[in-house]
Amino acid sequence: MISEDGRPGTTVETAIASYDGRAVQQRFDRLATEEPLEIRMRAGTQTRTVAITMRTPGADFELAAGFLFDEGVLASLGELRGITYCVDRDVAEEQRYNIVNVDLHGSALPPLDALERHFTMTSACGVCGKANIEALRDRGLVPVRSGLRIDAALIAALPDRLFAAQRVFATTGGLHAAALFDARGELVAIREDVGRHNALDKLVGWALMNGKLPLDEHIVLFSGRASYELLQKAISAGIAVVCSVSAPSSLAVDLAREFGVTLAGFLRGARFNVYAGAERIAFPEPG
Amino acid sequence: MISEDGRPGTTVETAIASYDGRAVQQRFDRLATEEPLEIRMRAGTQTRTVAITMRTPGADFELAAGFLFDEGVLASLGELRGITYCVDRDVAEEQRYNIVNVDLHGSALPPLDALERHFTMTSACGVCGKANIEALRDRGLVPVRSGLRIDAALIAALPDRLFAAQRVFATTGGLHAAALFDARGELVAIREDVGRHNALDKLVGWALMNGKLPLDEHIVLFSGRASYELLQKAISAGIAVVCSVSAPSSLAVDLAREFGVTLAGFLRGARFNVYAGAERIAFPEPG
Repeated sequence: MISEDGRPGTTVETAIASYDGRAVQQRFDRLATEEPLEIRMRAGTQTRTVAITMRTPGADFELAAGFLFDEGVLASLGELRGITYCVDRDVAEEQRYNIVNVDLHGSALPPLDALERHFTMTSACGVCGKANIEALRDRGLVPVRSGLRIDAALIAALPDRLFAAQRVFATTGGLHAAALFDARGELVAIREDVGRHNALDKLVGWALMNGKLPLDEHIVLFSGRASYELLQKAISAGIAVVCSVSAPSSLAVDLAREFGVTLAGFLRGARFNVYAGAERIAFPEPG
Repeated sequence: MISEDGRPGTTVETAIASYDGRAVQQRFDRLATEEPLEIRMRAGTQTRTVAITMRTPGADFELAAGFLFDEGVLASLGELRGITYCVDRDVAEEQRYNIVNVDLHGSALPPLDALERHFTMTSACGVCGKANIEALRDRGLVPVRSGLRIDAALIAALPDRLFAAQRVFATTGGLHAAALFDARGELVAIREDVGRHNALDKLVGWALMNGKLPLDEHIVLFSGRASYELLQKAISAGIAVVCSVSAPSSLAVDLAREFGVTLAGFLRGARFNVYAGAERIAFPEPG
């Protein structure tokens, strides 16, 4: 989901199914854009990709400068010669605004050890959402196959079950949760973590070690937002239905559609939105 | 903040200052523990650190197995010989439960290319919260120096100002925000992103490029939770007062205390909690 001039916008519009507790209707909704940004540093004749981060486009130069400063690679504004988008002809058009070149004064790059400890990556997978999706396919990820069909009312009831289970052992207010439900909406397992992705990894690890993969007859509910990273992990585990109390990103929706995952978001009371795979949800007959 | 048996718990207790809109009192509060976990893979004579992730202790073996499966490194349960904590004598006691060994059948490790694209790291910095804090000091991070003093009522008023500014351009419900305020509580800049850390990097990048660093006379408010990573970035930028609408992690509090940052959390109406640096906040006189 890229805007027409090739430059990714901060938000994108997409068609969704919106359920208000009684009826479902098609409408358009705006999503926060999530696209990779590759940060390259250049000094003298040296060029290095120092990070790829999933971000919302906009303020990309600030993001690159702030990231390098916060990670201790850039010591002051005086070291900075300029920041530009990488609009070389050999870069595919859809990737141009997802690569920034940070040019330094001086003839050599600073030591990147501190950064490498946390962020070393190659840019082999390309840096646009589409290329990321292709890379996942190359890695062997396959669309989720599932004959699961779930009542809309069952989905709407899940958040209360998650919160009830969380209350037992989360007294801090600072934990993300991922909860696994079976097709009847019974809670099977719940895992919590300060990191959203960790909560899902724990859940999938539990399923792996208990011989329950793929989770193609199950529903997972997240307490937070659905991002690219969460959907990628959910697809690895073959999860048929992914629900989120909050909003999904653009790339999460793209991934769900590409890999046959049902993605519901904004579960609030009897209401929720469906961003992908609405055919697995049984809505009440109108009238 | 480690429990007494050396094994990090899911939550830890800490002393805080709790403000209810009229008076402040000292009490204890529970925080979600945040500690690094190093995941090592072993097969035949090969050993490799494949990831270090900040996580809440508990279900560590599930986390390791699920992470490796979700990232495509571990294809099935059959490849797994076992998972253990690294309790070698040469590993410092406080790090033992922060390292897991994932042992595989077979004589060699699988290709780790896919993983390396995103997660390659060395374990040079050690894998406990304390070692991480020391590594930041080695990197040149210094305590924040600031004579800033802020009225408690001003802090309580910040979330409404953040939300008012957010409403203008965030129509998606899926963005994190970081907002910069001056000492009088005036909004200076706000940045949004699907990634919490990106929102702060953008804000710091803006300050860097406009010659406003260090931000030692400023307040930053996050729409989400305060983690190790956010505090590390805030300290890099010299931010005197960090506020969060939600809860901080244990390691965020440790970092704030070590580096002289005032850290307030759970800003709700007239109430908030102070986890570090309460001396910069002027509470109403009792009576």
